[in-house]
Amino acid sequence: MAKERIVIIGGDAAGMSAAAKIRRVEPKRDILVLERTDYTSYSACGMPYYIGGLIDEVDSLIVRTPEVFRDKYAIDVRTRHEVVAIDPKAQRVTIRNDQRTEISEPFDQLLIATGARPYCPDVQNVGAEGVFGLSTLASGIRVQQFIKQEKPQKAVVVGGGYIGLEMAEALVRQNLEVSLVQRGREVMETLDPDMGRLVSQALRDIGVNLYLSEELQAFESANGRVKAVITDQRTLPADLVILGMGVRPNSELAEAAGIELGVKNAIKVDERMRTGTENIWAAGDCVATLHRVTGRPFYVALGTVANKQGLVAGTNLSGGSAIFPGVVGTAVSKICKIEVARTGLQEKELLELGADYVTATIKAKTRAGYYPGAGTITVKMTAEKGTGRLLGAQIVGMEGAAKRIDIVATALTAGMTVANLVDLDLSYAPPFSPVWDPVQTAARQLLNNL
Amino acid sequence: MAKERIVIIGGDAAGMSAAAKIRRVEPKRDILVLERTDYTSYSACGMPYYIGGLIDEVDSLIVRTPEVFRDKYAIDVRTRHEVVAIDPKAQRVTIRNDQRTEISEPFDQLLIATGARPYCPDVQNVGAEGVFGLSTLASGIRVQQFIKQEKPQKAVVVGGGYIGLEMAEALVRQNLEVSLVQRGREVMETLDPDMGRLVSQALRDIGVNLYLSEELQAFESANGRVKAVITDQRTLPADLVILGMGVRPNSELAEAAGIELGVKNAIKVDERMRTGTENIWAAGDCVATLHRVTGRPFYVALGTVANKQGLVAGTNLSGGSAIFPGVVGTAVSKICKIEVARTGLQEKELLELGADYVTATIKAKTRAGYYPGAGTITVKMTAEKGTGRLLGAQIVGMEGAAKRIDIVATALTAGMTVANLVDLDLSYAPPFSPVWDPVQTAARQLLNNL
Repeated sequence: MAKERIVIIGGDAAGMSAAAKIRRVEPKRDILVLERTDYTSYSACGMPYYIGGLIDEVDSLIVRTPEVFRDKYAIDVRTRHEVVAIDPKAQRVTIRNDQRTEISEPFDQLLIATGARPYCPDVQNVGAEGVFGLSTLASGIRVQQFIKQEKPQKAVVVGGGYIGLEMAEALVRQNLEVSLVQRGREVMETLDPDMGRLVSQALRDIGVNLYLSEELQAFESANGRVKAVITDQRTLPADLVILGMGVRPNSELAEAAGIELGVKNAIKVDERMRTGTENIWAAGDCVATLHRVTGRPFYVALGTVANKQGLVAGTNLSGGSAIFPGVVGTAVSKICKIEVARTGLQEKELLELGADYVTATIKAKTRAGYYPGAGTITVKMTAEKGTGRLLGAQIVGMEGAAKRIDIVATALTAGMTVANLVDLDLSYAPPFSPVWDPVQTAARQLLNNL
Repeated sequence: MAKERIVIIGGDAAGMSAAAKIRRVEPKRDILVLERTDYTSYSACGMPYYIGGLIDEVDSLIVRTPEVFRDKYAIDVRTRHEVVAIDPKAQRVTIRNDQRTEISEPFDQLLIATGARPYCPDVQNVGAEGVFGLSTLASGIRVQQFIKQEKPQKAVVVGGGYIGLEMAEALVRQNLEVSLVQRGREVMETLDPDMGRLVSQALRDIGVNLYLSEELQAFESANGRVKAVITDQRTLPADLVILGMGVRPNSELAEAAGIELGVKNAIKVDERMRTGTENIWAAGDCVATLHRVTGRPFYVALGTVANKQGLVAGTNLSGGSAIFPGVVGTAVSKICKIEVARTGLQEKELLELGADYVTATIKAKTRAGYYPGAGTITVKMTAEKGTGRLLGAQIVGMEGAAKRIDIVATALTAGMTVANLVDLDLSYAPPFSPVWDPVQTAARQLLNNL
């Protein structure tokens, strides 16, 4: 076994978690990692904070460099090496390096960890200079350098998801005039609109011009540089554009090799992270996962999921046995002082499933009302009508609000009812919580509505 | 039913939660509350912050005054009315008011919510002026006024539990020279000593003189005022002493009426909050509860438990049906910048139970390492050997550390294993957590040790 060669395509969260795990278990295993950029094992989630100036050194986003993997882990990491084809039958990958030379390498086991890329609609001038998506660390550095060197004045963020909002805040911090165009009626469409409205307001409060229910149609450019964003309702002058319209899995390489895709064109894997093709595995933002609440396939691109899946793949690739049981739809973000979190299913998803559900929304405080720094927190919670089975929750609030979502994520995973949640022995002291934790206050209200 | 009279002894968390619940359900119900102090429905947990000067007005600790209960809730609340006897057969209580007149009132249903009092060993001069326990709001006000008027210079806190530590911090804030005498080898004996040591150090860091493994023997006094604390090893000059050696349930009244007591002399109740005596109920710091991890009786005095039990009693007393399923041993505290939390069983308890367990302790960061304000967090986690069933966790760390204990409290309640905990879909974004939440990092380490 130890002589079998493992090739990993992609050197970020999933790929390097797997590589590191394999190395810990099998000191002699032949591991080759092929990474098309200059960087490995970085925190893509940290880029908005680097661009916003909260973090000075881009190096602090890098967990481990290619040199560390080579020298300390004895892993053959080749940067600027892009895999352009997989041959599952011959068990070989074709690689193009930065000299554009094509070489071929054999594998016994292959792990595809190619990640995702920002969605980019096919509109006019989308290739203009100054229009950026954010995915790799290299793309984050390009945005930071563009701001530093070109000193743009007016930025437009297209799309109001997590990255869009975090980037809007980052650009406000860099003193740009920031507009945000969002197709939906509120930002953060993974929240219900009544909760999303609170986040929209938080953005206005930091000076972002919001254009809601408005759709991108094209970009205007001059001399190859972006000059404006054209929506179905107006033209917004812009010398910097950030695309925040979600991501798509980098699954084309797998598809071309005949590997089965699943929901949203993400690579289909089982809970051990095996694809449908023998000796080929996949993990991270390029794969589809299971939603543990619906029992259905689900696509989500998050660093925490990628790390876990990488560890599972690495465990199974090094003689162990591990499964990744799926997600419950948990996510969290911070927009200036506002914390936002969600887990489980939102109303839109419940309606699609034809679920019979009830909701409750409460306002409370993050700490005891009399304790300094107590801020507002709004919790919306959803349960199945009749049974009271917990279905999801959303939180918007001040410091200390968001991490409470983990209580609900844990309870959801355990299949708890709203009554079970009310009964939980949660921690209480005035600096941390009112005597009834806000998630339990929401659960109490929801009990009444069942 | 609505004409039956309910008498409640004690007007704080449990008593008034019950009273308010009954009133919401039954607008006409005859409710009499007898409270021996001047105050109702206050946050006893907030007193250290009031004494420490973090909260200016004592009124902000009062959730609802007796007047509000009388005027808005139509509840007959009588303050300065102390119940001195219960006659279960005659269904009457004997009350002494502040004119020392004894009167008698009938009840159909009685709820005992008499709370707890600081433990006070029977040593010399314990009654000297300047020696305080903290339980009622009145006692907190006395301490605050003593500091303001008598301007003590040297304080000794006897006992290193939550109240002792919070008071030590409060007194440091008021610029007193503070010493703390603790019988155990570290403060916070609800933590294992290896975790308690971190809290001991945090106290030293704010300038508290710690005397560990040292026992109170007597107080020295002059003219009726405390002058020193005498331990088995030294004499510590003191013009203010705070007793922080835990609390005892106020169960004497119940005991005298022939009502059965349970563990630690707390009143024995079933999960509906009924005592063993017909038509008599009890809730809050005066009752014993169930530990959901051990399945054994357990005594704990915490505002959050008292509120929940009061609601359960009130629900059952107003024609509804509710149970209080017990606790898992969750508690949290903040000592200056250090957050401390625990849930489940500590090693001492596991050894007493003869449990076969393993532990893991990890150090991590509260946020992504590169994100501003990332602080250290230490998590110790315990599971049953072999099965991996979660048994408990302890957390000591900087801002954002402690509330994570709720994840473990929820997982414990659900009977999860350590592997289940690793699989949880917890929230991640750089301002909130490393990509592996520290509780999952601890769980991963613990998995290796099973």
